[in-house]
Amino acid sequence: MTYRMVDLIQKKRDGLELDKEEIYWIVNGYAAGTVPDYQMSAFAMALYFQGMTTEETTNLTMAMVGTGKQVDLSSIKGIKVDKHSTGGVGDKVSIILAPLVASFDVPVAKMSGRGLGHTGGTIDKLESITNFKTELTEEKFIQQVQDLDLAIISQTDDLVKADKLLYALRDVTATVDIIPLIASSIMSKKIAAGADAILLDVTVGEGAFMKTIEDARVLASTMVELGKAVGRDTIAVLTDMQQPLGMTIGNKLEIIESIEVMQGKGSEELTEFICHLAKIMLSLAGLEKTGAEIRENLVSGAALKKFEELVAAQGGVVENIYEINPTKHSYEFKADLSGYIETLPADKLGILAMKAGAGRATKSDKIDFDAGIVLNKKIGDQVEEGETIFTIYYNNDLATSEIEELKNHINIGNQKKEIKEILEIIK
Amino acid sequence: MTYRMVDLIQKKRDGLELDKEEIYWIVNGYAAGTVPDYQMSAFAMALYFQGMTTEETTNLTMAMVGTGKQVDLSSIKGIKVDKHSTGGVGDKVSIILAPLVASFDVPVAKMSGRGLGHTGGTIDKLESITNFKTELTEEKFIQQVQDLDLAIISQTDDLVKADKLLYALRDVTATVDIIPLIASSIMSKKIAAGADAILLDVTVGEGAFMKTIEDARVLASTMVELGKAVGRDTIAVLTDMQQPLGMTIGNKLEIIESIEVMQGKGSEELTEFICHLAKIMLSLAGLEKTGAEIRENLVSGAALKKFEELVAAQGGVVENIYEINPTKHSYEFKADLSGYIETLPADKLGILAMKAGAGRATKSDKIDFDAGIVLNKKIGDQVEEGETIFTIYYNNDLATSEIEELKNHINIGNQKKEIKEILEIIK
Repeated sequence: MTYRMVDLIQKKRDGLELDKEEIYWIVNGYAAGTVPDYQMSAFAMALYFQGMTTEETTNLTMAMVGTGKQVDLSSIKGIKVDKHSTGGVGDKVSIILAPLVASFDVPVAKMSGRGLGHTGGTIDKLESITNFKTELTEEKFIQQVQDLDLAIISQTDDLVKADKLLYALRDVTATVDIIPLIASSIMSKKIAAGADAILLDVTVGEGAFMKTIEDARVLASTMVELGKAVGRDTIAVLTDMQQPLGMTIGNKLEIIESIEVMQGKGSEELTEFICHLAKIMLSLAGLEKTGAEIRENLVSGAALKKFEELVAAQGGVVENIYEINPTKHSYEFKADLSGYIETLPADKLGILAMKAGAGRATKSDKIDFDAGIVLNKKIGDQVEEGETIFTIYYNNDLATSEIEELKNHINIGNQKKEIKEILEIIK
Repeated sequence: MTYRMVDLIQKKRDGLELDKEEIYWIVNGYAAGTVPDYQMSAFAMALYFQGMTTEETTNLTMAMVGTGKQVDLSSIKGIKVDKHSTGGVGDKVSIILAPLVASFDVPVAKMSGRGLGHTGGTIDKLESITNFKTELTEEKFIQQVQDLDLAIISQTDDLVKADKLLYALRDVTATVDIIPLIASSIMSKKIAAGADAILLDVTVGEGAFMKTIEDARVLASTMVELGKAVGRDTIAVLTDMQQPLGMTIGNKLEIIESIEVMQGKGSEELTEFICHLAKIMLSLAGLEKTGAEIRENLVSGAALKKFEELVAAQGGVVENIYEINPTKHSYEFKADLSGYIETLPADKLGILAMKAGAGRATKSDKIDFDAGIVLNKKIGDQVEEGETIFTIYYNNDLATSEIEELKNHINIGNQKKEIKEILEIIK
């Protein structure tokens, strides 16, 4: 069956449902270049207003998967669980969670991304370890998972061609924040990467893609339903991203903090959060473990041993994971009154860390692995006037005024707020 | 001031109003090629859902005018009134109205378009006259209006560059039926063509662009407000297009019918309709005439004399306006029962005439000037079983079954419907 794209745009514009054949025709045409960008962008804008049913979103996702290579992990025994975060500030979860899960002999074959703007990326963080290689051939990737139960590599360029094209187009046509498109973009890559089951960390708050719990819930439910519809057991965890996760922002700084957690010296908040996610991820792999058993593997050194094996296997200098180069400059941001920290906005701190060199404003920017922020206080913590809230480390010419500007965003008051890291679990 | 198009798309998507500077930036950027099609189509789709205020539409229109040449008619004395129809079937109004108004020494400097699909165009109809030239230099065009008070030429290619680009884009992105874009497309061309005042014939019904009186009213009001906002006195007439206008469809057939009207031998319906429009057009030019005075000029030969002068001035063979070449085939479509004609759909008859060779399915199709349809009956007329409702003339291999298929659309019943040609006047 052949169609005219203009008719399919109009059908969606008028609020009608597209069938499987129509959606595949659009996606394949777009990937092949026979459906031009100017029709695809009009279609995306129609989607913004008219949405998509679960069935449409499922068809869209699977059609997208078909436009690129699909990784075949079937030679690896067991249920391969993947994990995805919709992006956060100070989000070093994968770096701790992956070796922790692998320490239970559950295979983790993970593809991760890079950071952009105020959010960081697991691949950048791993590359802050001297000689760590994030690009492996598919053969070596699978072999390493068979040997070690663990590999983390950069997402290869040949997965989901339609997503790459569409993502770039959405970015310049005000069609980024459309739930079915976000859901299909995330899920198509996870499915193409070969996952049997998927744990989704959907972050919520000013520092996250989803600003409200309502939007996050819709996105999470869409992805969970979608995953199930295509035979991938999927669980989504809605997590708070109004403040950075853990105590550090910046690539090497986050590696160091991850090591501390795996040495039993991390913050209780982050340690508990990782244990919670590990429990869900293990259960998706068919393994029921108690919180105590999981915490034991995390703090006893089992996860850390697995991480060191990972670093060695991918060419990294193991001793280097415990070291950071001092930066030329550092600056202590101090409280100008006493009270409780009421706000500590993840996005503002993420942007500041980026300006310090820890992140990229544009894709081609180079990262300073040693730059970043170390937090002494988090929301709900008591602080005295003059006490340091965070220290920022940088090698560039960041102006002190830019750091002090955070005064406008970090509120100190008399309200002791309690933050729950996990807001909701959707399965 | 410079903008990012993505931000302006988002602003409109989110239902906010764009200011003058923003709209000019978009339109100029699009005409210059710095705003690409894929952003413009997303913007157009956002407009579909969010609309535009009168001020936005006015700014859009004047920005579009600025992207092309503007005809300067100031050397012609008096108020130059233009007339535009949103398109109809059997619509020969301009061919009669222009010489009628000119017969009162009111200058008519008219640019017209060609037909596409089921609707015809004034330029095609005039070109059915042997040697009639529809392309004149601007200098000759103005000189002819100064000499004769009348010239009708094909709209030149260099008016409103942004409209040409946008029109082609809308056609393939399901963004045609957006009132502010339709209004600005029509009005920008009339304004660029130099009109001081504008009479708009907004057709309504299945054969027209606006299917309902409500939509037509919104479009008409938008254009009237827009015209006034930019100092062009504008009046819109909503006219019924559920059946063809007059008794003929087809280029030379419509010239012949126009001549008959100007000889006082036309249908009362069409004669009266033309007189009504002429009264409005003359009043826009500052000349108040009674219906009787207008009818006198129409049926006495004054308008016909002016038309003959027009044909001669533009190189046409005057005797040829009274002649049509017989076609190879003709077919009489007969009533299969007795009663009143209840429906006579303009679009279906327009498409049939097009298939007979009188119109174009695509822009590059060639027209058979002699092909077309002559109606013997209109809605409300009584018909006997076996009586001819229309005769179709053609030189191609049109199948009789395609003609007989109209049986499914022309209803004969016991209801004597009365059709009012003019539904509403908006000023």
